[in-house]
Amino acid sequence: MDYYKESLKMHEEHKGKMAVASKVKVETKDDLSTAYTPGVAEPCRKIKEDPENVYKYTNKSNIVAVVSDGSAVLGLGNIGGLASIPVMDGKSLLFKEFAGIDAFPICLETQDVDEIVNIVKNIAPTLGGINLEDISAPRCFEIEEKLQAQVDIPVFHDDQHGTAVVVSAAVINAAKLTERKLSDMTAVINGAGAAGTAIAKMLLNLGIRDIVACDSKGILTRDRGDLNEAKKRLAAVTNEEQISGSLADAVSGRDLFIGVSAAKVLTQDMVRSMNKDAIIFAMANPEPEILPDLAKEAGAAVVGTGRSDYPNQINNVLIFPGLFKGALAARAKRITEEMKTAAAYALAEIIPEEELKPDYIIPSAFYPNAADIVADAVEKAWEE
Amino acid sequence: MDYYKESLKMHEEHKGKMAVASKVKVETKDDLSTAYTPGVAEPCRKIKEDPENVYKYTNKSNIVAVVSDGSAVLGLGNIGGLASIPVMDGKSLLFKEFAGIDAFPICLETQDVDEIVNIVKNIAPTLGGINLEDISAPRCFEIEEKLQAQVDIPVFHDDQHGTAVVVSAAVINAAKLTERKLSDMTAVINGAGAAGTAIAKMLLNLGIRDIVACDSKGILTRDRGDLNEAKKRLAAVTNEEQISGSLADAVSGRDLFIGVSAAKVLTQDMVRSMNKDAIIFAMANPEPEILPDLAKEAGAAVVGTGRSDYPNQINNVLIFPGLFKGALAARAKRITEEMKTAAAYALAEIIPEEELKPDYIIPSAFYPNAADIVADAVEKAWEE
Repeated sequence: MDYYKESLKMHEEHKGKMAVASKVKVETKDDLSTAYTPGVAEPCRKIKEDPENVYKYTNKSNIVAVVSDGSAVLGLGNIGGLASIPVMDGKSLLFKEFAGIDAFPICLETQDVDEIVNIVKNIAPTLGGINLEDISAPRCFEIEEKLQAQVDIPVFHDDQHGTAVVVSAAVINAAKLTERKLSDMTAVINGAGAAGTAIAKMLLNLGIRDIVACDSKGILTRDRGDLNEAKKRLAAVTNEEQISGSLADAVSGRDLFIGVSAAKVLTQDMVRSMNKDAIIFAMANPEPEILPDLAKEAGAAVVGTGRSDYPNQINNVLIFPGLFKGALAARAKRITEEMKTAAAYALAEIIPEEELKPDYIIPSAFYPNAADIVADAVEKAWEE
Repeated sequence: MDYYKESLKMHEEHKGKMAVASKVKVETKDDLSTAYTPGVAEPCRKIKEDPENVYKYTNKSNIVAVVSDGSAVLGLGNIGGLASIPVMDGKSLLFKEFAGIDAFPICLETQDVDEIVNIVKNIAPTLGGINLEDISAPRCFEIEEKLQAQVDIPVFHDDQHGTAVVVSAAVINAAKLTERKLSDMTAVINGAGAAGTAIAKMLLNLGIRDIVACDSKGILTRDRGDLNEAKKRLAAVTNEEQISGSLADAVSGRDLFIGVSAAKVLTQDMVRSMNKDAIIFAMANPEPEILPDLAKEAGAAVVGTGRSDYPNQINNVLIFPGLFKGALAARAKRITEEMKTAAAYALAEIIPEEELKPDYIIPSAFYPNAADIVADAVEKAWEE
């Protein structure tokens, strides 16, 4: 199936993928006077009296804006807000289809960090949550942090945290399957951008202590002079032993490789240099760091990718709909580390330990009720 | 029927009135790969190549944002963005129900003019049009003007122009019924805010030359020292003979009274002082400047109000859905005077001249296809 061609056809036929729908009808004068003036003044007054009433009389608790400036879209790079609409419209579609959340795209003209923060903050009254999407690093870190400090609804950069949570679920199950304790595992993360940084932090939270991060120039060390602020922060929490060298040096003798980098950078020789029963999550899109067959041939025990045509697809759609659903249900003011960890374990535990197999460590994107299972765990985690 | 109570019930039961709806399903891996990655990259690429393609592959041509800062909501005054959500949600509902337009509310935290302009400009990529709503004068003039200068989609402040167009339609038909030529008519507009100013300008465009505007202190003259910038501009184009005095002085010997002011300010004596077969549009909400029965008793030939429980309801819902529908269909870059005039005549002409009666000079809010009739005229006007 030629997805590019099909997608173009779908977009032209339907004019995008999302519409707005009325929840009430307006067919009589009474309808009009109830849904609009004069009746509508009453819910307004109630909200003016007590801002919390906005949750009672409006759709705020089920609305998420998918916000992007189009600066780092999929494999397309910096294509700007306008050209990013089909992706944000698609993300909104997934929110609706997988979790019943009323999401809509906000695609921005500007790529200025402070302007973006100010804009999103100022349109937040109608929103229950904010999903940041496809915003380039390190700008995405700053936008998320500044924005979350100014609004009391969850701000979530899915490219960072959604990826980190779903990878964590895969790591949890791969560790079970290969009979490793998380605290004993050694890991390499190749790719020191938004996703790589979030994955490193989350794996540290899960208890994996020995993590080495690499960028295209090799292992991140604290004394490398060419690191930006974000990479410096990543270097500060990884690579405790301060080893240096190339990716090949990094993977040698390690248990786990996580790639959020580029096609074909992991060779069979590198896999052979890893520990027995190595775990490989090669998530570069569309072409992974190593093809699953080659990785297995070189001795990997578990392989996952971002692609739907190989087993173990590590897909954010398993996480963000449920994570937001749970956060909205709990009226969480932000997404905490505990909520992300709860989401990762809930997703991992969908597969009973006895059913885990090398080609089945993560549920399919269409696993029934995955969003509800994740949502329940997330809601509970906020309440605790 | 207690609309306040019913409205509260409706809002609580449905959690607001608008939702988001998917236009395509996501039930298989192929659906996912077509609606989202990797397929979605293709429409993005096409838009990047040629920005006009956004109209081909997204819903832009059918999306309108209903933007408010909640600074002048209905009879409620400055209640802010959050408390204004039910009104903007209701306006979005009317767009959908009356014209099939996918509208959604943007309720702002800020009430700073330049910040509002900057925010709306920057979220414009996904939008086909912008409906400004319930923004206080004179800020609304500045916001509309500055914003329209920076975006190439229509910006329309309904409280000004929607009101002016629907009043114009009523004036056109009332003139026919009372056998007056527009160019011979004399008018008073009571209320020198957003709506009054827009009505004055539009009546001048329709050919009514002798218009006097009043605010709460009386007739606007060029030498009044207490006028703000907006009222000065209104004074400059009205009251050619520079008469001065109270509202009573203004209405005496005139044909047409238009009130966008406050309850009960027009007395029966004032109506008696007007010309024979006077026309009264008393649109203060919820209580009009004079009750229709009293106006008729005092000799008025035609009376209209903003209320649905009296004949001749002068309701913006007869205009804004069709006006936007036509502008979107034409891909108009702004709403021109010609488009508004075309809309007013199209609405007026829905009632054949021989069917006009004192209690039937404007179609009901639920007149079938009113929006399509207005839309066709508006589309044609832009194309010319």
